[in-house]
Amino acid sequence: MNESPKFAVIGGGSWATAIAKMLCVNLDEIAWYMRSQSAIDHLKAERHNPNYLSSVEFDIKKLRLTNDINEAIAYADYLIFAIPSAFLSKELEKLTVDLKDKVIFSAIKGIVPETFLIVGEHFHKEFKIPYDNIGVITGPCHAEEVALERLSYLTIACADPQKAKVVANNLSCHFIKTKISDDIIGTEYAAMLKNIYAIAAGIAHGLGYGDNFQSVIMSNAIREMKKFIRKVHKMKRNINNSAYLGDLLVTGYSVFSRNRMFGNMIGKGYTVQAAQHEMSMVAEGYYAVKSAYKLNQEYKAKTPIIDAVYEVLYEGKEAKKVFKKLTEKLD
Amino acid sequence: MNESPKFAVIGGGSWATAIAKMLCVNLDEIAWYMRSQSAIDHLKAERHNPNYLSSVEFDIKKLRLTNDINEAIAYADYLIFAIPSAFLSKELEKLTVDLKDKVIFSAIKGIVPETFLIVGEHFHKEFKIPYDNIGVITGPCHAEEVALERLSYLTIACADPQKAKVVANNLSCHFIKTKISDDIIGTEYAAMLKNIYAIAAGIAHGLGYGDNFQSVIMSNAIREMKKFIRKVHKMKRNINNSAYLGDLLVTGYSVFSRNRMFGNMIGKGYTVQAAQHEMSMVAEGYYAVKSAYKLNQEYKAKTPIIDAVYEVLYEGKEAKKVFKKLTEKLD
Repeated sequence: MNESPKFAVIGGGSWATAIAKMLCVNLDEIAWYMRSQSAIDHLKAERHNPNYLSSVEFDIKKLRLTNDINEAIAYADYLIFAIPSAFLSKELEKLTVDLKDKVIFSAIKGIVPETFLIVGEHFHKEFKIPYDNIGVITGPCHAEEVALERLSYLTIACADPQKAKVVANNLSCHFIKTKISDDIIGTEYAAMLKNIYAIAAGIAHGLGYGDNFQSVIMSNAIREMKKFIRKVHKMKRNINNSAYLGDLLVTGYSVFSRNRMFGNMIGKGYTVQAAQHEMSMVAEGYYAVKSAYKLNQEYKAKTPIIDAVYEVLYEGKEAKKVFKKLTEKLD
Repeated sequence: MNESPKFAVIGGGSWATAIAKMLCVNLDEIAWYMRSQSAIDHLKAERHNPNYLSSVEFDIKKLRLTNDINEAIAYADYLIFAIPSAFLSKELEKLTVDLKDKVIFSAIKGIVPETFLIVGEHFHKEFKIPYDNIGVITGPCHAEEVALERLSYLTIACADPQKAKVVANNLSCHFIKTKISDDIIGTEYAAMLKNIYAIAAGIAHGLGYGDNFQSVIMSNAIREMKKFIRKVHKMKRNINNSAYLGDLLVTGYSVFSRNRMFGNMIGKGYTVQAAQHEMSMVAEGYYAVKSAYKLNQEYKAKTPIIDAVYEVLYEGKEAKKVFKKLTEKLD
């Protein structure tokens, strides 16, 4: 790998757009893959993504835009994946370029529905990428605030600290502070689990529970998350660091979180189908809870919040009754 | 002490009113002291507190209302103090009744400005009350949500678990769940410190920082709180329990918190005097930060957030500059 590694952003959504913005502060050129040719054309003509964070203006000379994922991947040493986990497999089916020697960072906060794996595990198991070449970019970070250049903190996790540093250095700028971590499994699970807790917070809100209860859910959620992640991968970690607790809070307390919004609709009596139709987008936590619940059949951590969300979303149980029972298990 | 102990609520504010409401679910009679005779007259005539939580209707036959603090104290075995810490000393100067054999629970979240002590310590040192007769009632709990009978969780801390249970049983009802704890020092410090962090969150908001940064402040705040409390009183505690983290979150994320509101004004450029005048009420955190800062001269915990709030409120430093420096210390 050369001294100035090349980066590609994979995805056309808001988080992909935010990451492209950060990289462009530091780099003269990046590759950027998005599926939609019309979005690419718009970007080229109007200098902004037509669909997401449209206030962010790009220096078009820096962007190698392509709707051919292989072209973007062939170009780059570091690949940053930022597409919904539900679409990842479909995109990866298109690959003809070898991923060997590529460093792959996931900015996806979810579970690959086909394999029930977090993204790092998916690349490791399905594509034989060594863990030294796999990393995670995690918040707490709403993409919308990156667009506004509001100060945000990212954690960049990789088993190889040098690679974490390369990514951290290329994302850091006057509105982004970065920290590196070696807890690639824990940070990615945290990013995935927080979406489940955001759904739980949303359901509670939809059912009419108030702010006092919301804080009790969050306090229980971080303890539950700690137990769950310890079962998956035991190591010394401070669960109250920004990558875990901060990320949970920014999602759980956000009225813009699609996971919280989805939960809120469920709490208000929408069916899962109706809520998904209404939002016309995927709440990552919907897949995450199925996977976390199934995984936990093996781990057997005490996870009353995950269980409650699973029962509501997958077993058709009444949210009101399930949450009434849940309140007895929290403290 | 007889088998059905008698309770007195000391204070006429919103939290006192909420506690009186909870007690009245379980008890046939309580004493309730408030300074204002006109408020008492109004309560007797209209069955609600004219100034706070006025939607809460009381069964007047249950209330022994008095504006004589000695009468209320003489009546009761358990005293629940819920007046702003700034007025506590002045009220206690009126005492002629002996506090010996009284069990004293503090529902005050602050520092006694005259002694720089938390309320439990104040009663212990100034009134020679043994710690076995001192307790704390702590949230996360907005009084306004108690008024609405929204499910809330309280932690009742006392060195003597029997006394904690007595109070817990008399506060529990269909909208209140209680938990007991023996960490009387830690829970009371947490309740006090969280007001400082709420001021910090408010200052950051006032300065234009966003939700991403808010979650970073909260993530750092709980770690800072843990270190500080461990210096004050080392014992095994899970700082992510509702009494610590939950209480921090319900205050730090609340737009109704007077501490957060006060901080917000400071962040927007009000002087301390102007903000206090505008709010016409006391932000407990204003006194708490002075005390915490001074205490920490001795403890020497790393407390960058407390230090920053102190510098802004007491050393006249510019909030913008102080918080810019603070952002370098958080992660």
